[in-house]
Amino acid sequence: MKKYKRNQRIGALMKIFAEKPNYLFSYNYFCEIFNASKSTISEDVAIVKDLVAEMNFGRIDTISGATGGVVFIPILGSKERNEILDHLCSLFSQKNRILAGGFIYMTDIFNNPRIVSNIASVISSEFTCKHIDYIVTVETKGIPVAILTGQKLNVPVAVIRRNNKITEGATVSINYVSGSSNTIQTMSLSKRSLKENAEVLIIDDFMKGGGTCKGMEDMMREFNANVVGTAVVIETKEPEKKLVDNYTSLLVLNNAGLKEGKIEIFPNPKLLK
Amino acid sequence: MKKYKRNQRIGALMKIFAEKPNYLFSYNYFCEIFNASKSTISEDVAIVKDLVAEMNFGRIDTISGATGGVVFIPILGSKERNEILDHLCSLFSQKNRILAGGFIYMTDIFNNPRIVSNIASVISSEFTCKHIDYIVTVETKGIPVAILTGQKLNVPVAVIRRNNKITEGATVSINYVSGSSNTIQTMSLSKRSLKENAEVLIIDDFMKGGGTCKGMEDMMREFNANVVGTAVVIETKEPEKKLVDNYTSLLVLNNAGLKEGKIEIFPNPKLLK
Repeated sequence: MKKYKRNQRIGALMKIFAEKPNYLFSYNYFCEIFNASKSTISEDVAIVKDLVAEMNFGRIDTISGATGGVVFIPILGSKERNEILDHLCSLFSQKNRILAGGFIYMTDIFNNPRIVSNIASVISSEFTCKHIDYIVTVETKGIPVAILTGQKLNVPVAVIRRNNKITEGATVSINYVSGSSNTIQTMSLSKRSLKENAEVLIIDDFMKGGGTCKGMEDMMREFNANVVGTAVVIETKEPEKKLVDNYTSLLVLNNAGLKEGKIEIFPNPKLLK
Repeated sequence: MKKYKRNQRIGALMKIFAEKPNYLFSYNYFCEIFNASKSTISEDVAIVKDLVAEMNFGRIDTISGATGGVVFIPILGSKERNEILDHLCSLFSQKNRILAGGFIYMTDIFNNPRIVSNIASVISSEFTCKHIDYIVTVETKGIPVAILTGQKLNVPVAVIRRNNKITEGATVSINYVSGSSNTIQTMSLSKRSLKENAEVLIIDDFMKGGGTCKGMEDMMREFNANVVGTAVVIETKEPEKKLVDNYTSLLVLNNAGLKEGKIEIFPNPKLLK
């Protein structure tokens, strides 16, 4: 059976870790892949651990015992994070994004995996220290952010629907007041979506009044789930008081000048420690 | 400034490639990151190229010239692909998935990033030789598959909506006949979503009659886009004749026994060359 050189094993290890962040690999798994002894793999992992720290990729945790193994936890450095946020601001503030009625066209950004992957890196780095069982979002524009954050944190996603679908089985539905439009809307989530007493991270693309996030919080109460955090990509500056209290936004949009065609958007100062 | 050892550079290169597949990196980019000469990086890339081939990760292409660089193209081996398809079949055929009316609960699978990432690897490996500008899907359940396939192929996604949204700007709408329910439905896509004469890959989660995929094909004609392929995760065995001709499915569901509670699903034999 084939043997691999050390630098080949190091390269393959980093590739495997990068594709499955926050996933616990057993040492045996690597012993089999590389046809190598556990002591050899342990030395490789030690090298990878130093590399990940030196290059500011995050960290490698080794867990001992029978159920132990190795896990790669990607964490963005502050320089990289700030570059991502600045780049997002320059994208969202492109003049030709202004639509009639003072809206901004954002769909292309939220459907671009390369950009959304950066957004997901910022969010997952903020919540990497929390225990999370599920990410919860509401269709449609927040789904890519939720899925790519779920990929990075290695947790499943539950998508709340605007309509009740037959393919969801039994659902729980709630009515909520949209904070910005002041209309009553409905959201539904399949009863099978979450296990009991789950810890959830709520994710959405955009927050104005906070009504949708408040609705998701209410929905979580119906599932006896505990909301450990709420992350939105963009919050508007006005209204300053939202319907939810604890949330993290990446960007703040000054929506006062929108109707005159001015897009002023900046990184959330609370993130830039 | 810091210098890195060869095995550190190999590890970091594989990590960077794995996180951005199908992305063309310039040699200069790596020279700066590693504070190393171009000849050193070229040697590293040669090692990585051999490693990727030996481990069946896909391939590394080097493109010479001023606009050249290095790109990692992940391609699943047939053994890995078949394991993924078998695992999917075992997931989808779990007895407790049967819902009233002969439907199967699939939402948890299509919202699980780890599983969908495997699905996306199979699809992207099938279409890696085609030039693709966009992946096109229709909300909601197909979005995660489209986004993760877009991540692997490094192309943006366009999501067709069931309703016309004000935040999409000007849209093109079409009516189509749902093949399975025989009802007339509407789909809308923002005019800004696609550039002219785009090459697109259509992706959806499920195909019964093929009406939705046919609708997406019709929509693409309105955008002067060329459909280079259509991929669905599951097609039903009946009706055998779909409304679209050229498509690739990963799994085939024998839907004859569904109402009696039997789920029979198997990998598409056409994929298992």
